[in-house]
Order: sequence, then C-alpha cells, then structure tokens
Amino acid sequence: MKIGVLGAGQLGRMLALAGCRLGYRFRFFDTSSDAPAAQLGELHTGSWQDVQALRRFADGLDVITYEFENVSLFAAKTCSDCAPVWPPLGALEMGQDRVKEKACFRKLDIPSAVFREAHNFEELKQATLDLGFPCVIKTTTLGYDGKGQYVLRNQNDAEAAWRALAGSGVIVEQFIAFEREISVIAVRSMAGDIAFYPIAQNEHQQGILRTSRVPTVNLSESLQAKAQDYARRILEEYRYVGVMAIELFETKGELLANETAPRVHNTGHWSIDGAITSQFENHLRAITGLALGSTDLRCPTVMHNLLGEPPAMEALAAIPGAAIHLYGKSPRPGRKIGHINLLGSSVEELAEREKILNALVVKSSS
Amino acid sequence: MKIGVLGAGQLGRMLALAGCRLGYRFRFFDTSSDAPAAQLGELHTGSWQDVQALRRFADGLDVITYEFENVSLFAAKTCSDCAPVWPPLGALEMGQDRVKEKACFRKLDIPSAVFREAHNFEELKQATLDLGFPCVIKTTTLGYDGKGQYVLRNQNDAEAAWRALAGSGVIVEQFIAFEREISVIAVRSMAGDIAFYPIAQNEHQQGILRTSRVPTVNLSESLQAKAQDYARRILEEYRYVGVMAIELFETKGELLANETAPRVHNTGHWSIDGAITSQFENHLRAITGLALGSTDLRCPTVMHNLLGEPPAMEALAAIPGAAIHLYGKSPRPGRKIGHINLLGSSVEELAEREKILNALVVKSSS
Repeated sequence: MKIGVLGAGQLGRMLALAGCRLGYRFRFFDTSSDAPAAQLGELHTGSWQDVQALRRFADGLDVITYEFENVSLFAAKTCSDCAPVWPPLGALEMGQDRVKEKACFRKLDIPSAVFREAHNFEELKQATLDLGFPCVIKTTTLGYDGKGQYVLRNQNDAEAAWRALAGSGVIVEQFIAFEREISVIAVRSMAGDIAFYPIAQNEHQQGILRTSRVPTVNLSESLQAKAQDYARRILEEYRYVGVMAIELFETKGELLANETAPRVHNTGHWSIDGAITSQFENHLRAITGLALGSTDLRCPTVMHNLLGEPPAMEALAAIPGAAIHLYGKSPRPGRKIGHINLLGSSVEELAEREKILNALVVKSSS
Repeated sequence: MKIGVLGAGQLGRMLALAGCRLGYRFRFFDTSSDAPAAQLGELHTGSWQDVQALRRFADGLDVITYEFENVSLFAAKTCSDCAPVWPPLGALEMGQDRVKEKACFRKLDIPSAVFREAHNFEELKQATLDLGFPCVIKTTTLGYDGKGQYVLRNQNDAEAAWRALAGSGVIVEQFIAFEREISVIAVRSMAGDIAFYPIAQNEHQQGILRTSRVPTVNLSESLQAKAQDYARRILEEYRYVGVMAIELFETKGELLANETAPRVHNTGHWSIDGAITSQFENHLRAITGLALGSTDLRCPTVMHNLLGEPPAMEALAAIPGAAIHLYGKSPRPGRKIGHINLLGSSVEELAEREKILNALVVKSSS
C-alpha cells in the first residue's frame, strides 16, 4: 500500500511513523525540500499549481491524503484524478473557508459565535456596530495558529486590523469569553463507523496551542455527548473518511463550535502515547479501508508543544513518564519543533510530573 | 544525533521508527539493498569485510549500534575507530560464540546446561557418552532461529548431525526437558542504571519464536528476582550499554540460562505497545546517553510473530486490541514478515482476543 500525503510537515511525518508500522510506504508532496517528513518516504517538490508535478506525484499511489487544511484545493482535485483523496474534498473546502464553515454549522444546527462577513471597510464598521466591542476579526481563509486574526476593542483597532488584513476577505465574530477550549478528535471509517477520542482540554498562548490534556475534568456527560454529536453530524454530512478535529468553546454551560480541521490535529498528538490507537494510525486505517482501532484512553496524558529552542534532551528524558517527540526542524523562536506527551498513572501523578516539565520549559525559554 | 546501525533488517527498522520520534537520524549498513530498514534512513551496502565501505558508513556518525549478534566482529571493530559502538564489543564477541557464552555463565555463577565442546567426530561421540541421549548439538557460532542445531536421540542422529554440520565447531549440550522458556529483556544506561522489562514467556515451534507473553503467570518472585539478577551480572560484567536479552529455561523450580543476545530482541517486541517505553526507544536512550524510560507494563500483552503469508490486513485490523507491525518484507514460507501485539485490559480479555487471532492465523497458513 503506497500512500500519498500533500504536505510533508510534522503531521505528515507522524502519519508516516504510524504507517510504517503497518507496512505502508509513503510519498509526500511539498513546496520545500527541507521538510520534516522527507526522511520517511519519497519527496516530490513543486508548486501547488503545477499540474504535471502533481500528476507525477499521484501516479501509482493507492490513496492520497493531506496534512493541513490550507493545502490547495486545486492540488487535491488534480490528484483525485489519479487516486482516491480522503478526507473528502467537500470537507477540505469547508475547512478552508470560515464562511462555508459557519454555513455548515448553521445547516447542521451546531451553535457557534454570531458573525458577519465584511468585504470592505464600511461592512466591517457595520459588523462592529452589529456585534459590539470586543469582537474578533479573522481572515476567511488561510488562518492558522492565531495568524490572520485580531481582537478588536474599539474603532481604532478595527482600522488597524483592516489595514493589516487588506485584500483578504474577513469575517467579524462576536467575542466569546469562554471558560475553556476543548476539542473532539473523531474518526470515521469507509464502512461508516465513527469513533471519538476522549475530549481534550486545550490551552493557547498568543494563539498558539501550548497544551492539550485528557481526560478533560469537570465536563458534564451531557456536554461530552453534545460535542460528540456535533462532530458526528459533520462527519455524516460529508460522508467523511479519516480523522477530523472540531474545536469548541465551553461558555456558560454551553458549547460553541469554533473551527474544524479535516485532518489529524495538534490537540490529538497526546494519542500517540495516551490512547490504544493513535489518531495517526486511525486516520490511516480509515483511508485504507480498515476497521478503526480503539480510541480508549490508556492513562491521564498531557501534551506540551515545544516551541523554539527546546530544553536539553538529557533533561527531558529524565522526566518520569515523558515521551519525547521531535520533528527534525531547526529551532526558531515560536516554531513548533516537537512535543512531549507526559503520562501519569493518575491525574495527581501527572500534575507532579508536569511541574518538572514546566520548570524545564520556563528555564529553556528564559 | 545521527545513529549508525550495522544491519538493516526489521530490528533496524523498528529502532529507526522509535528513534525518528526522538528526532534522531539513521544510517544503515547491510549487504543487501532490499532491506526492511532502508526506507527509514540512508543505506550503505557492502561486504562485512570492506574496510573502506565501513569507514564511509561510520564517517560522521555520533554513535553506532548493531541489530543482530552475527554481525561481523571485524566490521564492528572497524567502525569503532570512527565512533563509539554500543553494546560493547566484548558482549558482542561473547554473544557470537556459544563456548565463550558458556564460559561467561560459569564465571558469573549463572546455571546453564552441562555441555562439551567437540572438534571432531571422536569428541562428539565422547560427548554423547558423557551427557547421554537425548542431547543437543549446536554450532558454536552463527546459529539463529533453531538453525544449526539438532536434538540427538541416538548414535545414528549424532552421525547425521556431524555430516550436516561438518566443518563447524560444535558444542553438545545436555537436553533440558524444560517446563517453559522465559526471557529477560534488560537495559543498562551509560550512567550505569539498569531496568528490566517484565519477564516474558515464550513459545517456539520448530526452533522459531511464535509468541511472547507478558505478564508471565505463576513465576515465583524468587525466580523472577533470580532471572533479573543473572541479567544484571552480565550487564555489569561487560559495562554494558543498551538492551540485552537473556533466554532461560524454567525446569524443576530452577532457571538455566540458554543464551544471550546483545541487542533488541524478538521476545521484547511486545514492549512497543505493551510497555511505557519500548525496548527500541530504551536501547536508543541508552546508547545516546539519556536516562532510561519506564519499562512498566501497560496491560497484558501477547506478541504473535507473523510467518510467511500473513492473514488479510482487513481481518487483522478488525481484531480488538490488535496492533499490527509489518516489516515491508515479501512473504516466503516461514519468513518473519511482521508481528501482532495483542492487548487486553485483563488476561481473560486477552485470551478471548487471542482465540480470534489464532483462528485467523490457522486459516491463513492452511
């Protein structure tokens, strides 16, 4: 079985690490030859518009997937002439465009923040009047890790943001003073079976994910069921195959969908060590027509992203229960270069271990 | 960190899969270019006697290890001029030669079967008289998977065996009617810390390992402690660094050492899914100077080797708790092409799941 992956970043790398175990071989397509997944398969480089390069890439592959939602839809469609592409292109298209995503939420009766589209500054001004301050402006497409979005506290912010984002389509959203952010990692097989990973609780700093932890404590069963039900609606709407992430805000006893990602997701990295079957293996099982593996939690787990220069390997390896994941990227300030999955036999033990890790990370970034 | 591995078979492949997680890069040396590990790193091919090829391989590596004990000692020594080689060459030399291994057991007061060396047929005949029938004849070097050994039940067997093994040095061992075979997978770090995996119980057929299961049931604490103590003596004797396996026979309430392997071992493959840290990661942690990871058991686990043509992926993936490992090898009768790590939340659940797997394996090999 030869699997193609559009994108050769760390997600592609972790897909390949899971897939090599299953005897699968990988081919990647990326614009850069210095890509984290390159050492785990054949790498084709080219632009996302290069039909010939994409066809050469897709030739002879059994199935094709993608590792980020901003992969060119054109590229994915071009590849789909040669081999099946999963997750389905409809879900990719929706995941790339906040307006389409909002329309999907509305259609499927999934609550999310009230929003307005704005195509010019007048519409933006009207949107801020409708929604009031604070509100959030986001580019309709190509946003990630908090890039392409700003919180607006007044009209001056609105003008500055408009200048920064000039030329992009934007939406303006009600500001949600959420209590926490959670995410559902769900997977649907070709046969239509759906499995959910335990819901993760996520912390961000400056728009970048810092930690995801499972189990999420003090989340009522009814909210857990609701979160999974929302995910199920989207998976079924798109006759989805593969792993999908949906991020939700918990606020005042309710859940509001924030965004979806039609791919393996940073808030599911804990599953490599903390679940029976990782999100990466389950994505591959799904797109290659296999039964899904168990998504059960093995033990309390917290994932810490490593940003920029990491602590010394010697120090990380000495933390009890620390599983180290490095992506082979050269460190730059704020760049995700790896993550630690910290395991504990209990939530209390995990908390103790996390103190050691936190002290190290603070020391390394100071 | 760039790690060299002498040999690019499935053990090298699984070392690389564990090491890529840690951000390590790999280079392999093998005589064949069609090697299971080739897709996970750079592959150098050449003969084990080719000093120039070995030096090119070793150049620029941070540390070198080997994935089988029959790797040429000459090759390992040649490499050690360029970079540290772990486990230590003394342990490799001992693991390659049953006479040296027996001498080691004797020196360290580790019980093992009584034996005689035989350099000619007269000595073989005398050995069978000393030890009585049945006894076991084994080549002194290069034996694996039951190859190069025969059970002798009478003088005719002895003559046939001598003809088959002519030219090899042999030893003749007392036949041990053991109740079961167990193995200790132990690991020693550069700092001298030693950790033991839970003892595995192994079943062979025609000299080839079929299953290893943990935990080993009904093994007294005193025998467990003895087994670990024997392993510890060997590790300390050689100032060992890395993973070592020691196979032992349980017979009449005692343990007899059968053989050692100075490397990651087939009876430790269960640890990829069944332990907190796999034997592969701990071997790499050891040889790169890191602290060892926990060797604790996560849940009852049994490893089944897949020999020859495997059952269909679809059927294997549908077994609850089955983690599939395929090595990318083309199936030939009796060839190890992968293994299944079957997990259960209890020994009873595992037994139920094993019935499903056994039915499949029987069906596929019939």
